[in-house]
Amino acid sequence: MDEIKIFAPATVANLSCGFDVLGCCLDTVGDEMLIRKNNSREVKITKITGQDLPLETDKNVAGVAVKAMLEKLNSDQGFDIEIYKKIKSGSGIGSSAASSAGAVFAVNKLLNEPFSLQELIPFAMEGERLASGNAHADNVAPALLGGFSLVKSYEPLEILKLPTPPELRMVILHPLIEVNTRDSRSIIKQSISLKKAINQWGNLAALVSALYTEDYGLLGRSLKDEIVEPVRSILIPFFDELKKIAKDHGALGFGISGSGPSVFAMCRGEEKAEEVKKAIQEFYQEKEIEFDLHLSKIGNEGIKILG
Amino acid sequence: MDEIKIFAPATVANLSCGFDVLGCCLDTVGDEMLIRKNNSREVKITKITGQDLPLETDKNVAGVAVKAMLEKLNSDQGFDIEIYKKIKSGSGIGSSAASSAGAVFAVNKLLNEPFSLQELIPFAMEGERLASGNAHADNVAPALLGGFSLVKSYEPLEILKLPTPPELRMVILHPLIEVNTRDSRSIIKQSISLKKAINQWGNLAALVSALYTEDYGLLGRSLKDEIVEPVRSILIPFFDELKKIAKDHGALGFGISGSGPSVFAMCRGEEKAEEVKKAIQEFYQEKEIEFDLHLSKIGNEGIKILG
Repeated sequence: MDEIKIFAPATVANLSCGFDVLGCCLDTVGDEMLIRKNNSREVKITKITGQDLPLETDKNVAGVAVKAMLEKLNSDQGFDIEIYKKIKSGSGIGSSAASSAGAVFAVNKLLNEPFSLQELIPFAMEGERLASGNAHADNVAPALLGGFSLVKSYEPLEILKLPTPPELRMVILHPLIEVNTRDSRSIIKQSISLKKAINQWGNLAALVSALYTEDYGLLGRSLKDEIVEPVRSILIPFFDELKKIAKDHGALGFGISGSGPSVFAMCRGEEKAEEVKKAIQEFYQEKEIEFDLHLSKIGNEGIKILG
Repeated sequence: MDEIKIFAPATVANLSCGFDVLGCCLDTVGDEMLIRKNNSREVKITKITGQDLPLETDKNVAGVAVKAMLEKLNSDQGFDIEIYKKIKSGSGIGSSAASSAGAVFAVNKLLNEPFSLQELIPFAMEGERLASGNAHADNVAPALLGGFSLVKSYEPLEILKLPTPPELRMVILHPLIEVNTRDSRSIIKQSISLKKAINQWGNLAALVSALYTEDYGLLGRSLKDEIVEPVRSILIPFFDELKKIAKDHGALGFGISGSGPSVFAMCRGEEKAEEVKKAIQEFYQEKEIEFDLHLSKIGNEGIKILG
């Protein structure tokens, strides 16, 4: 196999009480990528459509991730990478992670899988380091593994795949405003109250339990965040109103996706998700902000091979 | 049924990363209690052996818990309560919780179970309020429900029973020194770093996953506490040495039980637990501190009816 076409999914990190540790993969929102071996001994980004992103290998998250992987293998195989972006940069649904995870997944396939999916995570994290200055795993891990990923620890890196209750649906609203990940990170207080931390870890522990037991009610009662959401949500237009609308229409939970500005409503069942999506759409159409709106299952498969 | 005899188990709260939210029940360490209906319309503590504790109903945790329960029922049924203490007060393995949980369990049985086990928790918590000034649930919940209990939230009170991997064993060392629960609580900083909190909730989430998947290795890697243990462990003689010994002999995890001074080593399998227990015993015998040492399964049943 000299060429592979893949679907590289969008992901939702920082799921409420799972700040910095819990993310999930979307099923139908994502980019496409075409990767083929070349004879140049170089990794080249040969084409990008849909977004204005650097073609220079060392400035492109996919290029950097693949180079880190090839370096580990001591391989001088070259690759051409075409990226058909559908996820917008800076949207908060893992645009950079989709590209870096997708690229290492594809190259691994073309090299007959020298690495497991788990082993690919650190290479994809190098793309994140380039994108945000922070080699975080909470988007690349769910993109590669599918479903829900828990970043247990960074030193050593240990990532768990948690079960995916089948009826879950995600409604994602992306207000087309700019929020810089670095800025969004800098407004978070580095010291928090023990009491709030205890509430947060009680909720996260319950959320993990709910994923194992498919207890949708408990999942909803656990999707809370007293620490980051109150600070970051001020950057998102009409956050409180959106949350109220989503909850009033039966969403299990509502929160900020990644560092925003996208927000997610987690719902049980397609019908409920459609209702929540429609309510959000009607509300936001009256505001003078352009937006994208998605509805997706949780992508339990992660990256998919196309064609 | 006018009389019931029960075993009221000891419990281990604050399980490392599960500070304030996660506790578990011991199977063979605990008190016995005999409770019978009387005709006096009063709740009376008629006998206590093994510990010097108040017989006055309103100053006794069992008395207070039962009175809270009867008040809710608008019942004027009287009870005599005999408590045969084997758990020492101030040991950090839920002495007060055993008495208050045991009492409400027994009275509930004698009244033909007007309440579920979950519904008994708030009454038992009133005993904890008397004992420590804080109506916490992380000892009374595992005593009543058995196994591992997660206190998801206090407002509203929501408590989950988590699965118990069958090979788990607990070795409990109780150094016979005095540590007051209130003092032990007061030395904890009320503000913590976000980074440490994230590590903690990553570990707790992984621990919950490990309980569901019976992944003993992951359980061990998750039993960490960077927040409370470094502060409280200074009150426990030779804590660091004990921890090293337990780990060197294969304990999955080692930490402070409750607010101490008891410590626990969680082990996989009876044989490993015996080895850890022996090593701890040999080490501590050389110190000039008296101690109790227990080895127990996790008590999945909670309170047991005897005879």
